[in-house]
Amino acid sequence: MIVALAGGVGAARFLEGLVRVAPPETVTVIVNTGDDAEFYGLHVSPDVDIVIYTLAGIVNTEHGWGIKGDSFNALEMLARLGRETWFQLGDRDLATLIHRTDLLRRGLSLSEATAQIATALGVRSRILPMSDQPVRTTVRTAAGWLAFQEYFVKLRTEPEVLEIAYSGADISQPAPGVLEAIHTAQAIVLCPSNPLVSIGTNLAVPGIREALVASSASVVAISPIVGGGTIKGPADRMMRGLGMEVSPVGVARAYQDFLDVLVLDVQDAHYAREIEQLGIRTLVTDTIMRTLEIKEQLASETLATVLA
Amino acid sequence: MIVALAGGVGAARFLEGLVRVAPPETVTVIVNTGDDAEFYGLHVSPDVDIVIYTLAGIVNTEHGWGIKGDSFNALEMLARLGRETWFQLGDRDLATLIHRTDLLRRGLSLSEATAQIATALGVRSRILPMSDQPVRTTVRTAAGWLAFQEYFVKLRTEPEVLEIAYSGADISQPAPGVLEAIHTAQAIVLCPSNPLVSIGTNLAVPGIREALVASSASVVAISPIVGGGTIKGPADRMMRGLGMEVSPVGVARAYQDFLDVLVLDVQDAHYAREIEQLGIRTLVTDTIMRTLEIKEQLASETLATVLA
Repeated sequence: MIVALAGGVGAARFLEGLVRVAPPETVTVIVNTGDDAEFYGLHVSPDVDIVIYTLAGIVNTEHGWGIKGDSFNALEMLARLGRETWFQLGDRDLATLIHRTDLLRRGLSLSEATAQIATALGVRSRILPMSDQPVRTTVRTAAGWLAFQEYFVKLRTEPEVLEIAYSGADISQPAPGVLEAIHTAQAIVLCPSNPLVSIGTNLAVPGIREALVASSASVVAISPIVGGGTIKGPADRMMRGLGMEVSPVGVARAYQDFLDVLVLDVQDAHYAREIEQLGIRTLVTDTIMRTLEIKEQLASETLATVLA
Repeated sequence: MIVALAGGVGAARFLEGLVRVAPPETVTVIVNTGDDAEFYGLHVSPDVDIVIYTLAGIVNTEHGWGIKGDSFNALEMLARLGRETWFQLGDRDLATLIHRTDLLRRGLSLSEATAQIATALGVRSRILPMSDQPVRTTVRTAAGWLAFQEYFVKLRTEPEVLEIAYSGADISQPAPGVLEAIHTAQAIVLCPSNPLVSIGTNLAVPGIREALVASSASVVAISPIVGGGTIKGPADRMMRGLGMEVSPVGVARAYQDFLDVLVLDVQDAHYAREIEQLGIRTLVTDTIMRTLEIKEQLASETLATVLA
């Protein structure tokens, strides 16, 4: 059994390769829900849906989020009704939200609702939200504290992030199955996601980091920092804002207490020695997932480092 | 000021003419909410939306309900997620439901939410749900009691209706403004809607029928029964099932305690005498609203009978 800790787009792209080199049924994905939000009274789980849509083969591959070929007629009507519509929700995507919100109002937990949606869409891996309780990532900027989606989507990650908080994390618990999956895993993979607000939020749920430290399985992470920056998203600027080194070394340090192997891109090969001095093995390979073949290759090599 | 009591499609078509022969701002429409239902946790007010969409000029004129040019991608996705989708909700239509449901959850009343939606869509007449409390029309068939939309949409009005109940009506109140509008009206029009489950539901809200009886304004109804049947909907079969005469006479009797004038179609002219013997004046004219001109003509002649 393989456990993957995931955020959004980068994680989903990696998982697409992973479920092609390992039987999908053997993969459990623990997904960040710190980016969850409510729009129009509907519960949005952006990272969960990105992972589900990707593994279901219906994601909009150009964006990495949303459903391919989706229309935006409901959103246009909501604008006409006077609502803010900066969070892009397609009509099919809205259906998922409507369904999830309805399941939650009927008393299902977020993990139960997630399982129903994933199963209905034909996903064979197990998708677990990190927690059934609300944990909300907020970021402090010069203009004050912002909800994550306001910073991420409405303000296009433009403000500098001075501080990050995981509101509610202190009283949250890992969702049912999360700790068991980590305890019984043969390999644990940290997807190439933001170490602060995707993987970092997972790690803020009491018990998850401790389970990784205690796990007898090897833990491997793929560095989301490549060539001094990120492929997508604000991880590099966030790390810099918080005084972290923006390199695979910075990533290695963030996970140092439990990480066995760090996968870094060929262009960062010169960091390998410094990372190994932290007691972390390295794999240097092509981590820029331009094609499905590269995704499979990356997943295959990543697994080999910890399943050997 | 003109007050119109309305149900769905027939009413909306009549109102389209009415607001062209009277200033829209002088018209208050009191709309049946007995057909309201919840789908996927969203509050559907079918008759309210039919009236709003029609007066906003965005109704699907072919169906008489829904929004013209709407897509059905969310509904298709809901089916894929395992939900029943027999109630046809387009993507733009769903936006209205999402918005309304959100407003209700934030504590607005149905009449406040309705006013917001109507205003946002440019409707200049005042649209009032008959009540802010839930009143639900249910029908007894050979198979037992059914919620109205199950009978009306899911079963396509096929079962014979043996009995009608307005669940919750006994403890409901007219929405704010309803009784005041009736008391101060110069003319009251009962639209060509089902006398049992559209107008009848309005009349089941304690105080509305009494206000019509007490009103000093004249009350005129347009018979929805033409040539022994209805243009649209099951009113004729429902009336027959409940032992009422399926003719303008049957309609006149249903409203006898407050009705001053009944408008009947030219093909029903032979009923005029019998209706007048009930103490109700008649206007015989073309009531089949095939064109906008006929709608205007019908509205104009109808108003003339009570504003003289």
